[in-house]
Amino acid sequence: MSILVLGTVALDSVKTPFGLRKDILGGSAVHFAMGARIFTRVNLVAIVGKDFPEKHIRFLHKKGIILTSLAKEHGHTFRWEGEYRGNLDCALTLNTELGVLSAFRPSIQRSQRDIGYIFLANVDPDIQRRLLENMRLPKLIGLDSMNYWIKHKRRSLLRLLKRVDIFVANEEEAKSLTGEHSLINAAKGLHCRGARMVLIKKGEHGVLLYADNFIFSVPAYPTARVIDPTGAGDTFAGGFMGYLAMKGKVNQANIKKAAAYGTVAASFNIEGFGVERSARLGRRDLEQRLKKLRSFTSF
Amino acid sequence: MSILVLGTVALDSVKTPFGLRKDILGGSAVHFAMGARIFTRVNLVAIVGKDFPEKHIRFLHKKGIILTSLAKEHGHTFRWEGEYRGNLDCALTLNTELGVLSAFRPSIQRSQRDIGYIFLANVDPDIQRRLLENMRLPKLIGLDSMNYWIKHKRRSLLRLLKRVDIFVANEEEAKSLTGEHSLINAAKGLHCRGARMVLIKKGEHGVLLYADNFIFSVPAYPTARVIDPTGAGDTFAGGFMGYLAMKGKVNQANIKKAAAYGTVAASFNIEGFGVERSARLGRRDLEQRLKKLRSFTSF
Repeated sequence: MSILVLGTVALDSVKTPFGLRKDILGGSAVHFAMGARIFTRVNLVAIVGKDFPEKHIRFLHKKGIILTSLAKEHGHTFRWEGEYRGNLDCALTLNTELGVLSAFRPSIQRSQRDIGYIFLANVDPDIQRRLLENMRLPKLIGLDSMNYWIKHKRRSLLRLLKRVDIFVANEEEAKSLTGEHSLINAAKGLHCRGARMVLIKKGEHGVLLYADNFIFSVPAYPTARVIDPTGAGDTFAGGFMGYLAMKGKVNQANIKKAAAYGTVAASFNIEGFGVERSARLGRRDLEQRLKKLRSFTSF
Repeated sequence: MSILVLGTVALDSVKTPFGLRKDILGGSAVHFAMGARIFTRVNLVAIVGKDFPEKHIRFLHKKGIILTSLAKEHGHTFRWEGEYRGNLDCALTLNTELGVLSAFRPSIQRSQRDIGYIFLANVDPDIQRRLLENMRLPKLIGLDSMNYWIKHKRRSLLRLLKRVDIFVANEEEAKSLTGEHSLINAAKGLHCRGARMVLIKKGEHGVLLYADNFIFSVPAYPTARVIDPTGAGDTFAGGFMGYLAMKGKVNQANIKKAAAYGTVAASFNIEGFGVERSARLGRRDLEQRLKKLRSFTSF
């Protein structure tokens, strides 16, 4: 089954100890699509400005991403500028220019309203809710957010949480949204607030999944070539949701395997700037690392 | 096969959000013994002062710990006073009184010199080396240390590292000893410095094991009842080394399983103050959690 992702398409400027890139293709929806496209058709819902390079459109099209709901409006494309230092575990945002994103009202094709697998990547929770209201047959809804919305639109976000199946958060977000100190209690807290399934991203420590009747933990794939972690969480979510959409059945075994596929997809993402590495990814690359990941964790 | 542990026997005063305990039984060798005793006979090498309560000796004896090399000298027993706040992930040391530990020269029985499984828990690296020189048939040597020795006896510690099979460190220690920022690179760095196997303890994120020809990762067992984490790392090491000593064969499958047993042993330790919970632990408790841990991690 195909998948629909709402999020950002951005021009990122990134500095890491390994180099500097200016105005490269980025954004939550793009990184998500890189992870999900390996398993299923991805419908992208986002907005760009008139300055958005045609080559990026061609690139996304070539990668099989469906762009009929990618709006192009007067104004500038959303831009993010960030830097990673030390162990590259957290980004320092240097500048953000919202541009056309500030007036984004997602609009989708009639045929897209029946898509069952939906991922609401990080944008304003009111925009996420508005998109959701257009969907007629949601089968699995995933939601991501960020500290900015937890702080400024807490109520909107908590309301939305009750309507989704999967909430994806990093450690800090999970703890700040619940006020809990331990990871497992933060995961429980989000579950109590309505998310049927909680996925906590722990960077180099991997992912913790907390669901109705089970817990699952998978470590990060141990790659030593960390070049640029931007988009790792979205690539993970893409691999995770993409695998579930391909299987068409959300059971415990598929959820665990989806988290493992998301993990290995993310491990490729961080090995290059932007989508450099994740764009060249094939199913066989994932399978090889999945096999190794299994041997890293089984006893 | 039996095991020999060199370390501290202490009187701990601990404050956590769940209460306060004064002068309870603690120390690296004691916590190690609580994890290892489930699998094998533990020979404890340590020192206490004349003030050390007889009831603790009786308790250790009752738990099957061999105390023939527990020296009792004039002076005070080593005391540690600490506090845990927030998510209890790191101890704030309020006070340390070395007492008899400052003049500790370990001496062991002639028959103990042939013990093959040896764990050098956290004490001065020169004391650790001195003990090692007495051992005639080492089969597997584990080593733990702490930031204090990394800072003040770096050279002694690095020299010792070349002579051990397993180096156990927490994240911060591994990174500060190697100057590396990422976990996997820190583990590699310690491996290059001579430790055949590196075990990095990551608290609520579990353990990463880096060895000659394989990597293994196991998450912490997700318990929500964290009362007092003191000794969790030593209990882990005890379960790990104890299982290997019992099996008598150090291969990849046994190492992985040993790390899993260590993990579940540590999960009991943190559910009570001091050895309150870990002292009541039986093999069956470990098996139950091991089974669950396997389902948390397999895909």
